[in-house]
Amino acid sequence: MVMKVYGAVLSTATMRVFATLYEKDLKFEFIPIDMPAGEHKKEHFLAVNPFGQIPAFKDGDLKLFESRAISQYIAHVHADEGSPLVCEGKPMATVGVWLDVEAHQFEPLALKLRRELLYKPRSGMATDAAVVEETEAKLAKVLDVYEARLSQSKYLGCDCFTLADLHHLPAMTSLMGTPVKKLFDARPKVSAWLADISARPAWAKVLAMRNQQ
Amino acid sequence: MVMKVYGAVLSTATMRVFATLYEKDLKFEFIPIDMPAGEHKKEHFLAVNPFGQIPAFKDGDLKLFESRAISQYIAHVHADEGSPLVCEGKPMATVGVWLDVEAHQFEPLALKLRRELLYKPRSGMATDAAVVEETEAKLAKVLDVYEARLSQSKYLGCDCFTLADLHHLPAMTSLMGTPVKKLFDARPKVSAWLADISARPAWAKVLAMRNQQ
Repeated sequence: MVMKVYGAVLSTATMRVFATLYEKDLKFEFIPIDMPAGEHKKEHFLAVNPFGQIPAFKDGDLKLFESRAISQYIAHVHADEGSPLVCEGKPMATVGVWLDVEAHQFEPLALKLRRELLYKPRSGMATDAAVVEETEAKLAKVLDVYEARLSQSKYLGCDCFTLADLHHLPAMTSLMGTPVKKLFDARPKVSAWLADISARPAWAKVLAMRNQQ
Repeated sequence: MVMKVYGAVLSTATMRVFATLYEKDLKFEFIPIDMPAGEHKKEHFLAVNPFGQIPAFKDGDLKLFESRAISQYIAHVHADEGSPLVCEGKPMATVGVWLDVEAHQFEPLALKLRRELLYKPRSGMATDAAVVEETEAKLAKVLDVYEARLSQSKYLGCDCFTLADLHHLPAMTSLMGTPVKKLFDARPKVSAWLADISARPAWAKVLAMRNQQ
C-alpha cells in the first residue's frame, strides 16, 4: 500500500514531508486537506491527527503526525534508498543537535517574519515594523552561528546533506521573496549553503507541486 | 572520561538531561553555569554552545547542546543500560511523534504559563490574567488529546516509559504549584500518568538536586 500524505502544497510543514519523500525517490499519494473549509478540524482528519494540524501521514496502518517525526520515520525506515539524510552513531548526535536548532532557534523566527511580511499583507493586515526589526535582529544572531558552523562543516549536521538541512528549506525559501533575504546574502557560507540545498532536484519537485497549485 | 553537563539545577531543560542520566544510572559531572552573572554568554561556554543557552554537554571530545538532542544521544548510545527510554522500528516512529508533540504542542504553553504564574510574581511583575486564561484554554485542548491517547496506551509513545514521557517532567512538575494543576487533576488518565512518571526514582534524584540548591 502506498504511503499517504495529508496536507496542503502551500504549507511549509507539508513541504518538509514532500521533500523527504522525493529525496528518497518514494511513491506516495497526496491527499489535499481543504484548510479554508476547516477540513482539518473534521472527524475523518482528526482520526489521523487528533491535534487537527497538517501534515498527517499513513503508511499501512501506521498513522503519524508532526512533520519532523514523519520525515525522520521515512529517513530511518528507507535508510538505504535515495539520499541518506540520516547517519549512525556519534555523527548522528550532532545531526540531532542541528535538527533541534532548526526546530527551536530557526523556525520560530522564520515563521514570525513570514507572518509579518507575507501573510499579513496578503490578508489586508498591517505589518508590525517593530516586530520585524526585533525578529530580524534575533535571526541575524542565529545566522552568525550558522556561518561559523558552515565554516567548519559542509552541511549543518555533518559533511553530507541530512534532514537537519532539509528541514530548513520550506520556511527559508518563503523568506527569499522578502527583505529578510539580505540576512542570508550577507553571510557567504550561509548563502552558499542555501544555494546548494535549494538546487537539489527533490526540492525542485516540491516547488513544481506548489507552482501547479 | 566522565560525561559533563553544563547548566543550572533550576533550569527545566537541564533537569531533562539529569533525568535521562539518572534513568540510565550513568555517572556524570555537573558544571553549574552562573546565569545571573551572564556566564552563558562568556567565551568558554560559547565554545560548547554557540547559542549561549543551557544545558550543554560533553562526552569526551563530542560537544552537544539542545536538551532533547542530548537526551536522545544518551538514550541511544546507552540503550542497554538502565531504563530503555527509546525503542526500535515502527514503535519508535510513534515515540518520535510524541517527542515532537511535547516540544511543539506542550512545552510552549507550559513555559508561557510558568512565566506568568511563577517567574513574573517572583520578579515583581504583574501576571497577565488574559494571557493565563487564553493559554490555559489551549493547554486544556492539548490535554484532552493526551487523555484520549493515554486511554489507548499506557504511556504517550508506547506501552513503556520513554523520552516522550520524560521530556514533560520538568515543565509539568513546575506547574503543579500553580492553579494550572487543576487541568491535569480533571483528567483521570493524565493525572494517573503524571503520578506514575513523577514517582520514578530517577526523577526523585533530580528534585533532590534542585532542593539542595
